[in-house]
Amino acid sequence: MFQSFSATTTPEQGPPRLAALRAEMTRAGVDAFLIPRADAHQGEYVAPRDDRLAWLTGFTGSAGFCIATAETAGVFVDGRYTLQARQQVATEAFTPVPWPATQPGPWLTETLGTGVIGFDPWLHTHSEIARLGKGLGTGLSLQRVENLVDRIWPDQPAPPQGAVIIHPDALAGRSSAEKRAEIAETLRENGATATILTLPDSLCWLLNIRGSDIPRNPVVHAFAILHADGTCDLFIDAAKLSDALHTHLGPDIRTHSPDSLNPGVMALTGPVRVDPATAPVAIFDLLESAGIEVQPAEDPCILPKACKTKAEISGTAEAHLRDGAAMVEFLAWLDAQDPASLTEIDVVRALEGFRAATGALRDISFDTICGAGPHGAIVHYRVTEDTNRAVTPGDLLLVDSGGQYADGTTDVTRTMATGTPPEGAVAAFTRVLRGMISVSLARWPKGLAGRDLDALARAPLWQAGQDYDHGTGHGVGVYLCVHEGPQRLSRVSEVPLRPGMILSNEPGYYREGAFGIRIENLVVVTEMPPPEGGDPAREMLGFETLTYVPIDRRLIDLDQLAPAERAWLDAYHARVRNHLETRVSPAARDWLFRVTEPL
Amino acid sequence: MFQSFSATTTPEQGPPRLAALRAEMTRAGVDAFLIPRADAHQGEYVAPRDDRLAWLTGFTGSAGFCIATAETAGVFVDGRYTLQARQQVATEAFTPVPWPATQPGPWLTETLGTGVIGFDPWLHTHSEIARLGKGLGTGLSLQRVENLVDRIWPDQPAPPQGAVIIHPDALAGRSSAEKRAEIAETLRENGATATILTLPDSLCWLLNIRGSDIPRNPVVHAFAILHADGTCDLFIDAAKLSDALHTHLGPDIRTHSPDSLNPGVMALTGPVRVDPATAPVAIFDLLESAGIEVQPAEDPCILPKACKTKAEISGTAEAHLRDGAAMVEFLAWLDAQDPASLTEIDVVRALEGFRAATGALRDISFDTICGAGPHGAIVHYRVTEDTNRAVTPGDLLLVDSGGQYADGTTDVTRTMATGTPPEGAVAAFTRVLRGMISVSLARWPKGLAGRDLDALARAPLWQAGQDYDHGTGHGVGVYLCVHEGPQRLSRVSEVPLRPGMILSNEPGYYREGAFGIRIENLVVVTEMPPPEGGDPAREMLGFETLTYVPIDRRLIDLDQLAPAERAWLDAYHARVRNHLETRVSPAARDWLFRVTEPL
Repeated sequence: MFQSFSATTTPEQGPPRLAALRAEMTRAGVDAFLIPRADAHQGEYVAPRDDRLAWLTGFTGSAGFCIATAETAGVFVDGRYTLQARQQVATEAFTPVPWPATQPGPWLTETLGTGVIGFDPWLHTHSEIARLGKGLGTGLSLQRVENLVDRIWPDQPAPPQGAVIIHPDALAGRSSAEKRAEIAETLRENGATATILTLPDSLCWLLNIRGSDIPRNPVVHAFAILHADGTCDLFIDAAKLSDALHTHLGPDIRTHSPDSLNPGVMALTGPVRVDPATAPVAIFDLLESAGIEVQPAEDPCILPKACKTKAEISGTAEAHLRDGAAMVEFLAWLDAQDPASLTEIDVVRALEGFRAATGALRDISFDTICGAGPHGAIVHYRVTEDTNRAVTPGDLLLVDSGGQYADGTTDVTRTMATGTPPEGAVAAFTRVLRGMISVSLARWPKGLAGRDLDALARAPLWQAGQDYDHGTGHGVGVYLCVHEGPQRLSRVSEVPLRPGMILSNEPGYYREGAFGIRIENLVVVTEMPPPEGGDPAREMLGFETLTYVPIDRRLIDLDQLAPAERAWLDAYHARVRNHLETRVSPAARDWLFRVTEPL
Repeated sequence: MFQSFSATTTPEQGPPRLAALRAEMTRAGVDAFLIPRADAHQGEYVAPRDDRLAWLTGFTGSAGFCIATAETAGVFVDGRYTLQARQQVATEAFTPVPWPATQPGPWLTETLGTGVIGFDPWLHTHSEIARLGKGLGTGLSLQRVENLVDRIWPDQPAPPQGAVIIHPDALAGRSSAEKRAEIAETLRENGATATILTLPDSLCWLLNIRGSDIPRNPVVHAFAILHADGTCDLFIDAAKLSDALHTHLGPDIRTHSPDSLNPGVMALTGPVRVDPATAPVAIFDLLESAGIEVQPAEDPCILPKACKTKAEISGTAEAHLRDGAAMVEFLAWLDAQDPASLTEIDVVRALEGFRAATGALRDISFDTICGAGPHGAIVHYRVTEDTNRAVTPGDLLLVDSGGQYADGTTDVTRTMATGTPPEGAVAAFTRVLRGMISVSLARWPKGLAGRDLDALARAPLWQAGQDYDHGTGHGVGVYLCVHEGPQRLSRVSEVPLRPGMILSNEPGYYREGAFGIRIENLVVVTEMPPPEGGDPAREMLGFETLTYVPIDRRLIDLDQLAPAERAWLDAYHARVRNHLETRVSPAARDWLFRVTEPL
């Protein structure tokens, strides 16, 4: 079982640790210290040794940070974590601060007035520190210091030493050499001699490797310098590398211990391309101290990684068939239970069990969000022993989950009825479904970004004066991070969509205290030849749906579907049935045939 | 009759004038000279004295410019004018240049290499010259000179002296004093002492006046300085002002002759707000020469002008009822004719006649676009005696037209069948209609821009591999310019839509050599209270349709309409019938009832 439901922190742990930190702050001569959730690789998940925010404050959310001063300690969290932060931290010592409404610069200016703010330059990006600096009053200054939490954390775990595994070229569709040659050409074209890679998924993509240093994201913690000749210096704990892995990497990838990173960076000749938005400010400091010219630009792996190869798309399709079969087993099982006999944790355990039974599950791709009734309206709800709700017949059950498989990453949300749905639920579900279908059916001329399509998903809800306060979709990796950029379906996404990009398509609707609805498929951007009568000169793109899981017809108001929407759903269900009928158990097959009949 | 169909230029006029211009260029010591279409007020229409581009080259399109050098003379026109430019200019002397693919900077760098480029600083905006300067090779420089075309134009008409009329406060909804107080407050808040207004529609809006200096746009050519105390210096030809007008303006508007503008500007104390995107570079030169600080910012009238008052919306609604009745008379008349007996010019004459018969028509709001058959596919087609096509039964007839009335400006496009429609026309018309209805029905949360909604209009066409190469909608004034900013429905428009903004909603489809389709209504952005079940906390906007003209049901494939689309069209037709039945002649009434029956 990958997911756990127990609390890993207590509020009581915080105050003595905060006192110890303050003593270190005095010793270091700083009046404030920043404790981010991030590690040096800026991922969504951190290793236990990097979970300084939780260790210090008790707050375990996936986003937020603490700023400690001698007098106060603000825990900055966004709206989805307000309640959780209040429950997890000792509020006599820590003050939850609404963020981003309150920004750290103005808060520090008001709270501290004058003084020195210490921070660990490995845990903050260049852009982040630049932004913070701009927001500070004139009496405040920033100062790089060693990590003061590490100094007071006696049993801090060691850095992870997860084994690195080969990601086969057959699944990647391109060898590491090909990828390195392409990125090296980008560097040469832009006059850079090298780039420093700090994002673990960029590194894994570039070298066709995967790892197990953190949960949920099968990545390796390491740094790399890619040179303009296509060779690479990889700074990594030797314990992670087998002989087979060394052979896979080949002679053009030179491995070094992590301790060699600093001298390795300082020995470069500029200009060196570094991404201010993702690389630690410490990297910039090293380059500057050695007088090496920096070329600030996006990590050059991000865009090519997002445009999946044919092999990656085939692999992802196969992963979705496998995952879809597990989901069908799960949904058939769920329908056969007395809902009143189940809790949210029962549901999560069962679902992970069906995924594990495929024999191919490497990890879940994120902690399953399983919200019954009013819990469904908490967008990032993660059930614990303390919050675990017994399903009450009539509850909508929102289940958002996914698996990591060697050939692909899945992410699917279905919302199910458990009895008579609450008032307004069927109408809202139908609107959410219509938006989801509208995106599924969309065609558009090349060059448009997620922002240009976001309205399609929301228009049916807008008609009813409803909406949802999250993006319509995020990028998804291939046996990599379930959240990846740069592609998004969102009103703030300006990145043009390109063939091969995988995105989620997940509109929703949330009624606080009552129910939540979300329907999510993964889709891949695909070139669409013009239909008969179309203008051949117009290059059009569209989505192909990757996810194969039935949608609960008990929640659909058929009268509200347009003919094309109904036709899409019937065709989708027929496709799900045809692809999965031979992959599921006899009981699940009966269920599958029943729920995928034409509407 | 406002519209004329005769050619106003000949290709032969160009070469001798170009020769004379080159002699002046030599005398002035410049190697190139810029001849824009624009006047000092950057409007869509120019007075005869400002039509230097047409006088010199023969090209009469509404956008484009010429750059003359000793050896060559490039006429820069965009795709819609390529053909027209080739026909109107003497190609042995002038070379049509595809613009914006070819930009003037690189063209000059290649054509001229080194030298001095002269330009009249009153005819180019600050942004335009800055952009041009950046695009020039190192051997080229820009130099302000007197207008060299004016020197060689012996019978150049005098500046217009159109009478200024009062735009009643009852129609404007706010007095000039209120508007000036509001803009003055904006100036004070931004630390400016004054702003210089160069856009005629800003001036007319601010002072509640209208004019007749140019065709189609009922504006006054003048400049104004609005001070941070709300008073105003108006630089205007005294011949335009009656005693009544002086009384209307009142003591806070001080009038001066146009000659006093330069000393008036130079006597200011900064910072003075000027709009680099719309004000002539000459204004910036004056301020700079007097050492006055410039605050570059958008003309502060643009946004408040775009957000119409209740009175303006009521007036516009009344103008649309009047105009709709004229359109119904026209369409009823058209249906009663043998199409084979008509030419495009006959249709334009008849339509203007019906509008004139209202007794309220001040001008047409632009030259009617009337394209039969293949001419409909030329997006900005304007019929002349030379191009006039006899309607061939089966032609689609695209008619895009509008009127200027004291209470409002209209702009409406309808596409009509004249016999059996060509292959593909009904399917395409239905898609265009579905996009138009989608925009008509749209609701969205406050804060979105035209870009965020543009996909709604295009999605049905995109599904079929079709699209249109123009925006979905433009802003419209109230008895002012039929094209106004900042609001637009377009994939490039980032300006949030606000209540009171009037826009066109005009998707289309064009098949070259065959037919053109466009359906256009005007709509006004309106606050929409949440429907039952909607979230009261979400502030939603929507459109109310202003145009009352039936849509040709002979071109609709009913099977392709969703129930909500069909319901919209039936409701729209019922509304048109109810509002217009008492306003039209008996014959037109019969026709109206027939064409507005439920589908």
